[in-house]
Amino acid sequence: MGRMLGRTYESQRCSVARTLELVGERWTLLIIRDAFLGVRRFGDFADRLGIARNVLQDRLERLVEAGVLTKVPYQERPLRHEYRLTEMGRDLWPSIVALLQFGDQHLAGETGPPMLLLHRGCGGELDARRICTTCGTPLELGDVESVPGPGGARIPAAA
Amino acid sequence: MGRMLGRTYESQRCSVARTLELVGERWTLLIIRDAFLGVRRFGDFADRLGIARNVLQDRLERLVEAGVLTKVPYQERPLRHEYRLTEMGRDLWPSIVALLQFGDQHLAGETGPPMLLLHRGCGGELDARRICTTCGTPLELGDVESVPGPGGARIPAAA
Repeated sequence: MGRMLGRTYESQRCSVARTLELVGERWTLLIIRDAFLGVRRFGDFADRLGIARNVLQDRLERLVEAGVLTKVPYQERPLRHEYRLTEMGRDLWPSIVALLQFGDQHLAGETGPPMLLLHRGCGGELDARRICTTCGTPLELGDVESVPGPGGARIPAAA
Repeated sequence: MGRMLGRTYESQRCSVARTLELVGERWTLLIIRDAFLGVRRFGDFADRLGIARNVLQDRLERLVEAGVLTKVPYQERPLRHEYRLTEMGRDLWPSIVALLQFGDQHLAGETGPPMLLLHRGCGGELDARRICTTCGTPLELGDVESVPGPGGARIPAAA
């Protein structure tokens, strides 16, 4: 967001503004959402998001430069890379979950949430503090699986 | 974000995408951040954000239409309104806190966080689940005050 928003936005000494400079550009948080769902390859991001490939390439490269994603080779001839969340990138999980829960609560409509996050092996849902509503465990990314909800996710849960 | 992002984005059956349609437009989350800090009047938003007044007006009106903000008259002659967070709007607090904490953790640099959120009356900081690190209380919006941090907030804490 930084360059496009101009100096005023960038110059705000605020951690919300700084985070949005990194991830607040159009599509960027949906790319990160997909990365959390297990998407790693350029073509898969492109198919799921349906955005122009040059825009996707730009967003992915910026996220790599920023340290949110890392490029890892998965094939040698021809050389192909996949994009994985770094430890820094995984720290965006609480932000993604919070945005998801707001949407579930206020924007899901009558059909309900398109996707549910559940405590893996327990089946409990996450409360607003990412604590399991069934067993009370504070949940981390690795403890959670996503399954289709009543609102029918077009986007399959890959993680 | 909806209109500008086009049908593909809007049509994603995903609560993250839906939330971003509402609040993911450029500047919108910073307007909401300021609303949480106690900003209510058009001129104050304009001064703090330094964005074009027509853009600010558009964003505020969209947030009112979406039910995130409500317009309340504060003066009769001439009629003047202020913008307040609705209950729905206040439900964005966990998202704002998560984005802020990511920025504090990864983007604050050597000087440290520009602003600190503290448990009012206790002084403890909020952990990643918005639980007080001093006394263990799960904190809600009304329990928290913001104070300038070591990174020196240009934006004064009004709440």
